[in-house]
Amino acid sequence: MIDPLLLPELREMLIEHEAPAMREFCNVLHPAVVAENLEALSDEDLLQVLRQAEMPRQAEVFAFISLPRQVALVDTMDNAHLSALLEEMASDDRTILLSEMDEDHVDRLLPLIAQAERSEIRKLLSYPENSAGSLMTTEYASLPEALTTRDALSQLRLQAPDRETIYYIYVLDEGRHLRGLVSLRKLILAKPEALVAQILDRDVISLRVTDDQDTVVQQMAKYDFIAMPVVDDQNRLVGIITHDDVLDLVQDLATEELQRMGAVEPLEDGYMSTPFLTLAWKRGVWLVLLLVAGFGTSAVLQAYRLVSQKYEWLGWFLPLVLASGGNAGSQTATLVIRTIALGGLARGDHWRMLRREFLTGISLGLCLAIMGTLFAWQYQDLHHALIVGVTIAAVITFGTVNGTILPIVLRRLGMDPALMSNPLIAAISDVLGVLVYYNMALFVLEIVAKW
Amino acid sequence: MIDPLLLPELREMLIEHEAPAMREFCNVLHPAVVAENLEALSDEDLLQVLRQAEMPRQAEVFAFISLPRQVALVDTMDNAHLSALLEEMASDDRTILLSEMDEDHVDRLLPLIAQAERSEIRKLLSYPENSAGSLMTTEYASLPEALTTRDALSQLRLQAPDRETIYYIYVLDEGRHLRGLVSLRKLILAKPEALVAQILDRDVISLRVTDDQDTVVQQMAKYDFIAMPVVDDQNRLVGIITHDDVLDLVQDLATEELQRMGAVEPLEDGYMSTPFLTLAWKRGVWLVLLLVAGFGTSAVLQAYRLVSQKYEWLGWFLPLVLASGGNAGSQTATLVIRTIALGGLARGDHWRMLRREFLTGISLGLCLAIMGTLFAWQYQDLHHALIVGVTIAAVITFGTVNGTILPIVLRRLGMDPALMSNPLIAAISDVLGVLVYYNMALFVLEIVAKW
Repeated sequence: MIDPLLLPELREMLIEHEAPAMREFCNVLHPAVVAENLEALSDEDLLQVLRQAEMPRQAEVFAFISLPRQVALVDTMDNAHLSALLEEMASDDRTILLSEMDEDHVDRLLPLIAQAERSEIRKLLSYPENSAGSLMTTEYASLPEALTTRDALSQLRLQAPDRETIYYIYVLDEGRHLRGLVSLRKLILAKPEALVAQILDRDVISLRVTDDQDTVVQQMAKYDFIAMPVVDDQNRLVGIITHDDVLDLVQDLATEELQRMGAVEPLEDGYMSTPFLTLAWKRGVWLVLLLVAGFGTSAVLQAYRLVSQKYEWLGWFLPLVLASGGNAGSQTATLVIRTIALGGLARGDHWRMLRREFLTGISLGLCLAIMGTLFAWQYQDLHHALIVGVTIAAVITFGTVNGTILPIVLRRLGMDPALMSNPLIAAISDVLGVLVYYNMALFVLEIVAKW
Repeated sequence: MIDPLLLPELREMLIEHEAPAMREFCNVLHPAVVAENLEALSDEDLLQVLRQAEMPRQAEVFAFISLPRQVALVDTMDNAHLSALLEEMASDDRTILLSEMDEDHVDRLLPLIAQAERSEIRKLLSYPENSAGSLMTTEYASLPEALTTRDALSQLRLQAPDRETIYYIYVLDEGRHLRGLVSLRKLILAKPEALVAQILDRDVISLRVTDDQDTVVQQMAKYDFIAMPVVDDQNRLVGIITHDDVLDLVQDLATEELQRMGAVEPLEDGYMSTPFLTLAWKRGVWLVLLLVAGFGTSAVLQAYRLVSQKYEWLGWFLPLVLASGGNAGSQTATLVIRTIALGGLARGDHWRMLRREFLTGISLGLCLAIMGTLFAWQYQDLHHALIVGVTIAAVITFGTVNGTILPIVLRRLGMDPALMSNPLIAAISDVLGVLVYYNMALFVLEIVAKW
């Protein structure tokens, strides 16, 4: 929520060119609040205010500005300002910004940055998207083992200003291999003459630079750390991932999963800031795909036109039957997809899950079949009503089985199980449902009735 | 993932009654890992291992055990052990455990706990479920203003052992009013003779004890704090909420939202640990509700039986038409519900969102209408095919409008917008779809055709 009083004040400062007031605005408030208010200004005004602050503060505030706006601002900044800002930014914020821009753009920016930083940026940009390497920051606090805690604290004071966190300090040998972890809590509780080696926690839980984002989230959620170290394949510390970035990541991943489940291609930005055409496209592709699936259902229905002409009443219950299958399938797919995302589905659990869903399908299918039969019986003979009921039980069972198998297959293929959206599961269920319904009807009305 | 070597080792220790090895097992590994392995044991074995550790460590490990298992364990512990454990547990973990048990049970447990703790527990249990008050811990570090940083550090060392975090220290006056915040980073960087009052950050962003969990998540995600202070209506500090609890909360809220969207009543536990009957119930209620909605569609179809008898071909395209409306509605509802959950939808945005969705519906509806018309034209006259196409455009537009309005109405009524699940939106869309389709057909075939 933007403070309704801050923004007019800010505009006033701009009109009056009150540089000291702008600087104070940037310095006193939380950088998230500063960024939020600045975003309501034009690019030029925003930069004019931001420029009044010291560079470290500018970098802090800039990181809280939304990503698409950051990209836009980069284009309007002059080179000197931009290079100073990029050098000052935390490495993870900078990597996110640069990986958002196209390659040409990055190639034009890199020469603005000092040589040492530049090779680090190239390294960070080279990690696969969504890997621990692409999420980490390289601004961690580290110490050698052979220090007293008093000396460790003095060294830490020197490092503090430009480190993302100093609450976890990583202990490295000369080859930067991770030897252990000391928390600042432990460090200030220890006797000043104690050695870091004595209070060190050597059993450090770390992430691999190649771990994917789901693993990062699962590990952080499990261990409750403020930060986790990221190591390469030789156990050398290359960065850390901090709790705040993981919180944002969890939100983003959940949003993506929900949008996929609702058959929307994930938006990169918030709903309100996504341009109309982008939004229409990200929905249109799925609507068209689902429409084509619907053509399939229609084609099958036409193939059975003789049946529907003869037993016209079948059509009255068709949407009921199809919806039941789709609903049961959506439920199952939702549960399976979420269980996979939370890392709660081991390979060995697949069969257990399938058996469980099959049983759920049969039990719930039977209950709903009874209700469906009673409903249809009001309009039709009992043996007609039973066709409706038995089909409901069958499509619900099919739905639960499909809802289990399809996401698991997608995952095996290395795809996102959440692509099995609720509408897609329903569409697949529709085709199957028509086939089951009409064949069941044919069997009962044409074959059983003739005995 | 459970280390496959640890568990057999643990069972060996139990058989051989190796108390020191069990104690080491509890002490050396991360409490999350200890808990995970212990959970694979029977209640008795689990308690036998846990009991070897010191009480503070026991409480730490116990908090990582899954909640249903914690409740089960409480029943098998003897009173002396239980009371010691409850007194040692962090207040937030304890509140979660106690609020999971029924009242009688809690009433029997409370006398086991020391008087001072008991009244605190009663206080914490009295906060509404899902409020900041019910999520916070009371183990925060605090200091008065009038100390040098040297003395502050000495005081902090005394508080450290039983505080959830000492990285943020809250500065209180005699009435426990929140005066400001000092981070441990700032404290160790300051000169030893500097006063806390001089390095204090007075502009503290805090939560109200009555704030709901969505606000907690939004504020923590916005400001990137390790912990946020929770104050009562007189700005007295009553607790803190820490980053790790918020991370768990975000995961839980996302799971809940996804399950609602898939028409499953939220499970309190993971899929695999939810009993079969509970799972069947939480799905059954929704399947039955949706079935009843399906009865509505069937009833409408019967009301239009004369139309469907006369224009039998209408039925072939019915599932196609209905699915299109449902899919567009699911997409919109998903986007609206998620935007609300992330706090990105202000009151004033409602109309903007509705206008936007209406436009999206019309544009995408027209595109799909053209495709649908071309498809139907293969089987029918152009003017019949146009009925299919125009209906598709209409139901898609209705779908987007419903998908916007219904979740917003639920929210206004104080209900969870995610109750508007994809299948429910589809069910509502079905009834509307049949009405639109058949009336459109009647209008074109009976009225327009007679001109």
